[in-house]
Amino acid sequence: MTTSWLDIDPSSDFSLANIPFGVITREIAQSPHVGVAIGTYVLDLQLLWGLHPEKFQAVHEALTTEIFSSPTLNAFAELGRPAHRAVRAWLQDLLSIDTSCPELLRDNEEARKLALIPQRNVRMQLPMAIGDYTDFYAGYHHAHAVGVMFRGVQNALQPNYTHLPVGYHGRASSMVVSGTPIQRPVGQILLDPAGPTTAASRRLDIELELGCFIAKPNALGTSVNVADAEKEAIFGYVLLNDWSARDIQTWEYVPLGPFNGKNFATTISPWVVLADALEPFRTTGVENKTPLQDYLKEERRENVFDIHLEVDLTTPEGDTTTISRTSSKHLMWSFPQMIAHHTLGGCPLRTGDLLGSGTISGPGGAKGGECGSLLEITEGGKKEVLLYGMDARTFLKDGDTVTLRGSCGSAGAKVGFGECRGRVYTARR
Amino acid sequence: MTTSWLDIDPSSDFSLANIPFGVITREIAQSPHVGVAIGTYVLDLQLLWGLHPEKFQAVHEALTTEIFSSPTLNAFAELGRPAHRAVRAWLQDLLSIDTSCPELLRDNEEARKLALIPQRNVRMQLPMAIGDYTDFYAGYHHAHAVGVMFRGVQNALQPNYTHLPVGYHGRASSMVVSGTPIQRPVGQILLDPAGPTTAASRRLDIELELGCFIAKPNALGTSVNVADAEKEAIFGYVLLNDWSARDIQTWEYVPLGPFNGKNFATTISPWVVLADALEPFRTTGVENKTPLQDYLKEERRENVFDIHLEVDLTTPEGDTTTISRTSSKHLMWSFPQMIAHHTLGGCPLRTGDLLGSGTISGPGGAKGGECGSLLEITEGGKKEVLLYGMDARTFLKDGDTVTLRGSCGSAGAKVGFGECRGRVYTARR
Ligand SMILES: [Ca+2]
Ligand SMILES: [Ca+2]
Ligand SMILES: [Mg+2]
Ligand SMILES: [Mg+2]
Ligand code: NI
Repeated sequence: MTTSWLDIDPSSDFSLANIPFGVITREIAQSPHVGVAIGTYVLDLQLLWGLHPEKFQAVHEALTTEIFSSPTLNAFAELGRPAHRAVRAWLQDLLSIDTSCPELLRDNEEARKLALIPQRNVRMQLPMAIGDYTDFYAGYHHAHAVGVMFRGVQNALQPNYTHLPVGYHGRASSMVVSGTPIQRPVGQILLDPAGPTTAASRRLDIELELGCFIAKPNALGTSVNVADAEKEAIFGYVLLNDWSARDIQTWEYVPLGPFNGKNFATTISPWVVLADALEPFRTTGVENKTPLQDYLKEERRENVFDIHLEVDLTTPEGDTTTISRTSSKHLMWSFPQMIAHHTLGGCPLRTGDLLGSGTISGPGGAKGGECGSLLEITEGGKKEVLLYGMDARTFLKDGDTVTLRGSCGSAGAKVGFGECRGRVYTARR
Repeated sequence: MTTSWLDIDPSSDFSLANIPFGVITREIAQSPHVGVAIGTYVLDLQLLWGLHPEKFQAVHEALTTEIFSSPTLNAFAELGRPAHRAVRAWLQDLLSIDTSCPELLRDNEEARKLALIPQRNVRMQLPMAIGDYTDFYAGYHHAHAVGVMFRGVQNALQPNYTHLPVGYHGRASSMVVSGTPIQRPVGQILLDPAGPTTAASRRLDIELELGCFIAKPNALGTSVNVADAEKEAIFGYVLLNDWSARDIQTWEYVPLGPFNGKNFATTISPWVVLADALEPFRTTGVENKTPLQDYLKEERRENVFDIHLEVDLTTPEGDTTTISRTSSKHLMWSFPQMIAHHTLGGCPLRTGDLLGSGTISGPGGAKGGECGSLLEITEGGKKEVLLYGMDARTFLKDGDTVTLRGSCGSAGAKVGFGECRGRVYTARR
């Protein structure tokens, strides 16, 4: 990988190898539109288009003015993988030290000043209009650990777990972008076996997940085969924090699954890392010894990504502790498998639909500091996790901030997500 | 109630007392837009607006040209209950024999020819853009009967059932309007205890439900109290068939709830009966002896509607049998209670979001012919339901058509929904 004419810190998530897409609002009164992250900058694609429409049009014939002045990435996603690939490659060239068109930006101070904005000066928006959000449960070590907690080690996993990617329909309306305040939910909780109380959740938790956005839709009554899912269906990835109120969830979830325990907010990181950008980081997931149904069989064994993931907890006092370090490779099911399963019966996926991986924890569990939820770290709230400054938590306290981070690759060529962050605010009275 | 200058059959669901709203496409090349049903006609509101914009604007100040030329009812719903009430009242006047403005339609043959179209000449569209769909489980007799089947009579209802309206997130992308073909889903089913098979569902079922569309949205982090939910939140109602593949559902649903067993299609009736139109048909629901949490307490005991509901099964040969007759009063939770519960933790509901009541069955169960699903009618597939012509079913056969109907009120002043219909087609190979 070549270097950029821009000064990019080698530790940046947004190297030339990445080029993630997002929706920005600039300080000046302007409607939300599309940009890409590069180092500490955003390259404003609406503005760049305005300067050189003919250059963009030459990159891919389907590009139009509306694509990058849209308030979501849906129109861009809908163009399909070849278009995403062409635009990313062209932007990589444009930002390379030996760019084939130096006159556009590298050697054009005026254009640089207009189109390159420090990230601190833009406001990030939710990147996609999300029609439906589905949350899977593919994090094997999480599913196993939680199963042991609830049903004992013999029955930790339900009989279906290794046969199909278990998932459930989540709530799209409460999907929020990193930085959005998270209000502790009120709900019915069972403090006394005699009956429930309506109160603020006392067991507010996080779930570290990888999110996957759909590019290519399928029509009602059709299914997507697993090979096509891998080649065409996926637009890109984000980090996802599936905030969970464990006490609300425990009381409500039989027999139809999680509801108010999960639907008060789900935070995603603002930059969509394109599917192509993660290709070099493929690896094998958690081994599944169960013979797979044909529709779930993949050609490549390297069906997940080795993204290094971290969870930081920052106390109201401002002290930060990394409470988890793991990898997105600890999944038993790949996103193409999830897509093949989701559409098996003919359910339509639409451009902009979001799939969550399920909570990701490593095999080391609580002892190894590899858990994607406080539920696991604290063994159901029984043990405290020690924080910097001799503070401790079982579940989240008002004023706590949780930040997910994720990246792959080596210094100078990192492909990362930036932050997926949310601060907890006191419950409504 | 006065009569109309239009010739309306007294048995019509679409009397002057109703005035339900829908989205139509006319035979002539035209984009979808808003109409109301009256007798066997549709009154085209886009066209009527074009003839007399000043009349409409006088009805309610928030009305604009876009409202009725929109391809969904969302913009109209968003205006709020007072606007819906004013427009419905004005249309009732316009269509009354003693209308205050006879020159607009009653005595204007040219305008009548343009604006009143036989229903057979229009194509009905999905009436709303549905952001999120939530399916509740408020049909007490259904929940109890299914619980007995799965867990025995002692544990038929889960401990939470009488404390909160149990619900789960459904799939919005597969919501279809009455008449849309229903393809039998393929899925994983457990024919052999040794492991699942991927095959067409053998236990395709229906669920008779009432659907409720949201008018007034609430912001993230806010909740809607039950009194406001009743006064302001609801736009109107439709019939809903929550098609269910029981064999897929049984294998997949632990621990996170229904997924592919439900997400392949959900059919709704095309005409949205406004909340005001159902007001005269309020009654008390299923008694709940459990003390309620404050946020679920309602002032009025008449919190549900007595809508007479029927399920017709038409065989491929064309013979029709009514397999169920019941009432929407058999709910233990009202829609305002569902809304109060759904938003308790701050989950935002948006204009156009849809809530399903859960399957509605009467206390008479299978013997009384009051079941909202074949699962109950056939006691889990153990007994056949006899059809016209000595045909019989446990679950649905390819080529079967299921039609839900619902109405209240007496002849000449009926408030009904029309049909919610779907025909089953052979599974994809
Ligand atoms: Ca989750
Ligand atoms: Ca249902
Ligand atoms: Mg969530
Ligand atoms: Mg359904
Ligand atoms: Ni006029």
